[in-house]
Amino acid sequence: MRYVVGVDAGGTSTRAALVDETGTCWGYGRAGAGNPTSAGLDLAMRHFVDAVRSAIGDHSPDLVMLTLAGGLGHDIRRDAGRALHSAGLDVAVEVEGDVVSAYFSATPDPDGYLVLCGTGATGARITDGALAAVSDGIGWLLGDEGSGFWIGHRAIRAVAADIEQRGPATSMTAAVLAGIDASPHFRDTGNRRSEIWHLMRHVYDRRPVECAEFAPVALAAWGEGDPVALRIVSEAASGLIATCESIVADDDRPIVMAGGLLYDGSPLAQAIEQRYPGRCLRAADGTAGASLLALRHLGVTADSDVLSRIHESLRAVRR
Amino acid sequence: MRYVVGVDAGGTSTRAALVDETGTCWGYGRAGAGNPTSAGLDLAMRHFVDAVRSAIGDHSPDLVMLTLAGGLGHDIRRDAGRALHSAGLDVAVEVEGDVVSAYFSATPDPDGYLVLCGTGATGARITDGALAAVSDGIGWLLGDEGSGFWIGHRAIRAVAADIEQRGPATSMTAAVLAGIDASPHFRDTGNRRSEIWHLMRHVYDRRPVECAEFAPVALAAWGEGDPVALRIVSEAASGLIATCESIVADDDRPIVMAGGLLYDGSPLAQAIEQRYPGRCLRAADGTAGASLLALRHLGVTADSDVLSRIHESLRAVRR
Repeated sequence: MRYVVGVDAGGTSTRAALVDETGTCWGYGRAGAGNPTSAGLDLAMRHFVDAVRSAIGDHSPDLVMLTLAGGLGHDIRRDAGRALHSAGLDVAVEVEGDVVSAYFSATPDPDGYLVLCGTGATGARITDGALAAVSDGIGWLLGDEGSGFWIGHRAIRAVAADIEQRGPATSMTAAVLAGIDASPHFRDTGNRRSEIWHLMRHVYDRRPVECAEFAPVALAAWGEGDPVALRIVSEAASGLIATCESIVADDDRPIVMAGGLLYDGSPLAQAIEQRYPGRCLRAADGTAGASLLALRHLGVTADSDVLSRIHESLRAVRR
Repeated sequence: MRYVVGVDAGGTSTRAALVDETGTCWGYGRAGAGNPTSAGLDLAMRHFVDAVRSAIGDHSPDLVMLTLAGGLGHDIRRDAGRALHSAGLDVAVEVEGDVVSAYFSATPDPDGYLVLCGTGATGARITDGALAAVSDGIGWLLGDEGSGFWIGHRAIRAVAADIEQRGPATSMTAAVLAGIDASPHFRDTGNRRSEIWHLMRHVYDRRPVECAEFAPVALAAWGEGDPVALRIVSEAASGLIATCESIVADDDRPIVMAGGLLYDGSPLAQAIEQRYPGRCLRAADGTAGASLLALRHLGVTADSDVLSRIHESLRAVRR
């Protein structure tokens, strides 16, 4: 019996699952932040090794599949191999994007699509089990149409326009102002309403991408029928659908939805499901997808029975 | 005969005019960057003193009116007074926003409005010769609706969407790509078109506000009837009109248009003129406005004859 380790390394945690070739999960490990871009390479590699080690116990896996956002390629693969070797673990390593592990967490179909909508927004086409094409996901300034940043940014601009009576009134204004620090320890003038200075300080003291924090305010106001929020969410959905349409062919392949803004009942998820009825699945645990991907690399037939077994046994092991 | 000095201190230059109480200009001086926020306080004050000194020659003015963007208030006034004093010039100093000098460059009416549209966009109400209220001008992330940043940002996003076939084709794409460095010395993948990597590098290697550099591309494409540019410019005009409407009363007071995007024939200027027929003037040399403002502070009747005389004699002195 051969064994593989599927690793999902993210910005807050690194999770690893030990899976045999039938899809049965035998071990699970968890460590800290595993994204080299945000955590730094050394720390990310330490957490990677920690998670792998606690997943495998006394087993000797045949392959470790590390999946993570961004910075793919040979460097990470080489660094990950060296990190395992230094820890006394001589095992082959493959690296893939977390887009691919998110995709395979929901389906074993080697051909299909992924729509990711969190702080950013990306569409991806998976062909023969690998990333074949990407659309958008080009960041808050240039793209990420319909993302959490996009929605939060529009929301905060609409709030500023409301306060200055340049735009329609919105219930988001009270919600946003209640959530920011409005202490008066900064310059104030009679020429502007003080709420504007509060907003400016809050927004410009942070990284632009943190505007995504206001997306939940917009989605809550959307739920209450606020007209300004309805328009923002509707335009976000149009942007996200346009990204899908640039990447999804007129076939019957699955479309996997991932990311914090495509939760059950989210207006964005609903819009995608309406556009592509009967084809949408929701992404699940990325370690399951990484494990399936690892089995594929070994040449194991990784079908829906195997994926179901991974999910079920993973739940048991994580308990 | 009393004399005043009107100073317009901007991000690239500081200009000063020596004017008598009839509005006749006797001297003109020019120095480097005069905005303390961008140039630093010491350098800005040195350029301020240089410009004043070369404008006054052997005269002893009764008042120096320093006008500049942003950071107003007592600190700059105190610093400017000290800088002149250290240079052996003991003269009273007043400080005002460049919004007010831009306004008074076009009209002596103590009550009216200013619309500024350059990299940013601001509306202002002038009451009794002073800044009474401001709308927008709250920066690229939170506002500046219809500004050069706003237009350039929309343009570059539309270009990215065109390249990825998420949005309609636009003639701006070729124009933008021709203007950016497209050398291949960076990571490339088969998953994306290389133009997207070029765009990303160009945009993310610069400060976000520099997206304003693409506004001329959008305005040129607007002139050629490009549908995507037409929509961007139309939405920009709506945003700018909304800022005007939040600040302009239903009276017959003048509306002064200032900034690089409100040039003669600009679609934004046309939109404002159509919304407020017969009320729109174009801002001229800010040192003229600063000089008029200085005369007002001395209690001199500063009417349209005085303003005309300032402009005519300033032109002669600057030759």
